[in-house]
Amino acid sequence: MSGVRTLVLATRNAKKVPEMRAILAEAGLDIEVVGLDAYPDAPDVAETENTFTGNALLKARAVAAHTGLPAVADDSGLRVDELNGMPGVLSARWSGRFGEAAGDRDAANLDLVLDQLADTPEERRGAEFVAAAALVLPTGREHVVEGVFRGTLTTGPRGGNGFGYDPIFVPEGETRTTAEMSAAEKNAISHRGIAFRALARELLALG
Amino acid sequence: MSGVRTLVLATRNAKKVPEMRAILAEAGLDIEVVGLDAYPDAPDVAETENTFTGNALLKARAVAAHTGLPAVADDSGLRVDELNGMPGVLSARWSGRFGEAAGDRDAANLDLVLDQLADTPEERRGAEFVAAAALVLPTGREHVVEGVFRGTLTTGPRGGNGFGYDPIFVPEGETRTTAEMSAAEKNAISHRGIAFRALARELLALG
Repeated sequence: MSGVRTLVLATRNAKKVPEMRAILAEAGLDIEVVGLDAYPDAPDVAETENTFTGNALLKARAVAAHTGLPAVADDSGLRVDELNGMPGVLSARWSGRFGEAAGDRDAANLDLVLDQLADTPEERRGAEFVAAAALVLPTGREHVVEGVFRGTLTTGPRGGNGFGYDPIFVPEGETRTTAEMSAAEKNAISHRGIAFRALARELLALG
Repeated sequence: MSGVRTLVLATRNAKKVPEMRAILAEAGLDIEVVGLDAYPDAPDVAETENTFTGNALLKARAVAAHTGLPAVADDSGLRVDELNGMPGVLSARWSGRFGEAAGDRDAANLDLVLDQLADTPEERRGAEFVAAAALVLPTGREHVVEGVFRGTLTTGPRGGNGFGYDPIFVPEGETRTTAEMSAAEKNAISHRGIAFRALARELLALG
């Protein structure tokens, strides 16, 4: 048994909370997961670090300090081989479209990556989704893990599910993009699933 | 004495030919330099390699093969520390604006880099201009050198000289951007000057 009864997931994304709940339940952990909806005054933390683990820790620390509860935060993005691992931590703002709606910004970001790779042949179109997940306990103890999900980039978007770069990312061994998979299919193999399951094992080990 | 009497500089940029002539004369070399204007049928070589040296060699090989003369080609760009060395070989097409006039594309490229670095503090705004210069002789002998020019990036463009990323690049030990310097000042310290002077030494050593 882990000593943790409740944890706060440092996200306002409504889809991440049930994903985390399911992963903890699968791991045999009886832990209540609440999102930041329950904490409207929680601070908005700027992602100023240049690593995923650094940003996940920043957010988890701030939420643990604000709530007094164990907190989990994640940060994720796309690393493109031909772009030396960029957009990386800049994935959500790669095209510099700060002011636009998320859907338009997503489309601008992936269009820019496709343009930047316009002359890149198939064998050099490798990429990976990466997610860091950090757990910060009120005692100050910190755990951070990273999940990596390899694939290749298409030459044009395909599929309407998911978000971000999903329409151009084909996982290794797949022919579909992650935007052509259901949320459940993607969660079973994705970078955030890998990272959240690794954190679940950390929580089990804490008992 | 080098055996080389004439060399073709694989460029349609009219400013590079006199720069190369001056550098060879300074090195004491009596070599005639001609640009691609003299060879309207020379092939346009796509820069498909993902290194500056690879692209410079591609272009020099193609022009040496076409003209039967010693050929020099260069490829250059900006490596930004915070972008893991990108835009790199994609410097001229970083914003994906293929169809636009060079000036508009330059502005779009540097605006995008500034946006991508919007949250990057001064101490992490390091960057370097890099130029590779390749010499290919009709005998098949090849030489390739790289010049690196360190500096930092501003938060907004300054100056009207130069081209490309010059308005946002401040060389180490300077307070002006390279777009606030004269062409002569910039050539004396720049990445392409460093690379061309290194090739001039190679040509001297060939004698």
